[in-house]
Amino acid sequence: MLLTNDIQNYPGYRSISGFELSSKLKEQAESYGAEFVYEEVTGIEESKECPGLCFNVRTTGGEYSGTTVILAFGKTPKNLNVQGEKELNGKGVSYCAVCDGPLFRGKTVTVVGSGDQALEAANYLANVVKSVYLVHRYDKPIGSEEYISQVLSLPNVKAVPNSRVKELRGSARLEAIVLENTGTGETTELASDGIFIEVGYVAKTEFVKQLVRLNGRGEVEVDKEGRTSNPGIFAAGDVTDTPFKQAVISAAQGSIASLSAYNHIQRMRGKAAARTDWRSIVPLVRKGT
Amino acid sequence: MLLTNDIQNYPGYRSISGFELSSKLKEQAESYGAEFVYEEVTGIEESKECPGLCFNVRTTGGEYSGTTVILAFGKTPKNLNVQGEKELNGKGVSYCAVCDGPLFRGKTVTVVGSGDQALEAANYLANVVKSVYLVHRYDKPIGSEEYISQVLSLPNVKAVPNSRVKELRGSARLEAIVLENTGTGETTELASDGIFIEVGYVAKTEFVKQLVRLNGRGEVEVDKEGRTSNPGIFAAGDVTDTPFKQAVISAAQGSIASLSAYNHIQRMRGKAAARTDWRSIVPLVRKGT
Repeated sequence: MLLTNDIQNYPGYRSISGFELSSKLKEQAESYGAEFVYEEVTGIEESKECPGLCFNVRTTGGEYSGTTVILAFGKTPKNLNVQGEKELNGKGVSYCAVCDGPLFRGKTVTVVGSGDQALEAANYLANVVKSVYLVHRYDKPIGSEEYISQVLSLPNVKAVPNSRVKELRGSARLEAIVLENTGTGETTELASDGIFIEVGYVAKTEFVKQLVRLNGRGEVEVDKEGRTSNPGIFAAGDVTDTPFKQAVISAAQGSIASLSAYNHIQRMRGKAAARTDWRSIVPLVRKGT
Repeated sequence: MLLTNDIQNYPGYRSISGFELSSKLKEQAESYGAEFVYEEVTGIEESKECPGLCFNVRTTGGEYSGTTVILAFGKTPKNLNVQGEKELNGKGVSYCAVCDGPLFRGKTVTVVGSGDQALEAANYLANVVKSVYLVHRYDKPIGSEEYISQVLSLPNVKAVPNSRVKELRGSARLEAIVLENTGTGETTELASDGIFIEVGYVAKTEFVKQLVRLNGRGEVEVDKEGRTSNPGIFAAGDVTDTPFKQAVISAAQGSIASLSAYNHIQRMRGKAAARTDWRSIVPLVRKGT
């Protein structure tokens, strides 16, 4: 969500940036006592001290243990897996137009991708940089006719059809992109200060596949209550197999997974679970009016 | 949601009234072309002209037909089903403290109910009216110890334990409530200007039970994509069998049901359905910055 510059489909806000909405959600959670720790998770396993009852989460910063875990790490932009991509990442190679676009003011950049995501990136960048190449696989991008023609008619957007990226070249920074024509096999070099790789997202769930059941796309399977195949592990948001991915759907799934995790803990303690008709208002006694 | 004076668990707003949030949602939907019609639905049936393909919705104001219907009529406050209740409805009898509380300034009112809903109503009304009786069935209300003691320690709230309502009396308006002691069976009369009936909610789905499968509580069964047992009919919100009822969960279900209805129509027309990884941003071409 952070990567989105203008969200217009979150109920309650006509238009809000992903950054602003994220900040609001974080502050709201913190006001109820949530603690945020920014570390990369390297592994999750059932604790040997209390098998079936608690979990250890190992991170780059330490180790955490708990009776429940909610998996909510979303999806990650897909790589092209071409030479130079890894080496030049952050040196002209980007996976987020909204985040990094402003670093390329006055420059020429290339967007790679054939779908809405690439069109949106090209559209956004056209207002920020000098000129944009849109490299796509077929004779035209995939999406609504109207939107495609709107984006491609922007004066500083140039489509590069029937092409795929073979290699990224540059020493300290990206300098050129080697393209292959998907019809003829011919290769050409395109000089570019930046490349935005907008070819979709993938659920990076490899490290939890021993723990929870995944679907064919690697997404974590959840039931209506946000429960995974492993009791005590819940999941929410784009990392799950929920068919539609939207901010409000993820927000609701977070709420559902939290309530289910709460009930799981209550039952472990032999206490009453939250009733299913959870109310919208928080019971606060107000002394004033 | 309209009946809630302070929502603190809708992600994105630290605190917002149900009325304000509802207004925002309505304006947002209207800005994309949604039309609102305020009529009571009296029946829904499959159209004879296009069986299996479209539906007729009869209302107090006319008849509407469409290829899909989304059921989203929530739950309705439960009645006590006692003498005088129907007759005095709106004449001292209310099912919504937040809506009608201000009409009882300087008056004495009674809240009936044993759970959180009744406690919240009593808590709200204590700030608005002169005094509040809280009539409940057992020796104390049901809920968190802390919240119960907070509400019952308010100077103008008086608990009436072990009691149930037998009858509501009054000619033009409510005058008194006949109570029965659940232990002794003894009846007493409680003078009261108003009564707020806060005994839970029920899904009034009787009129659609021939159309879609319901669960044991009368809720409409939906799958993860908001589909009911009847292709073309979708459902969202508190009327569904979703286990947790919260504003954000209903908002997400509305989004899911709409996308599924859209895909249903697209497939009927032989067109491509929306891809599952629906993006958060609306594809608008921005000419300025």
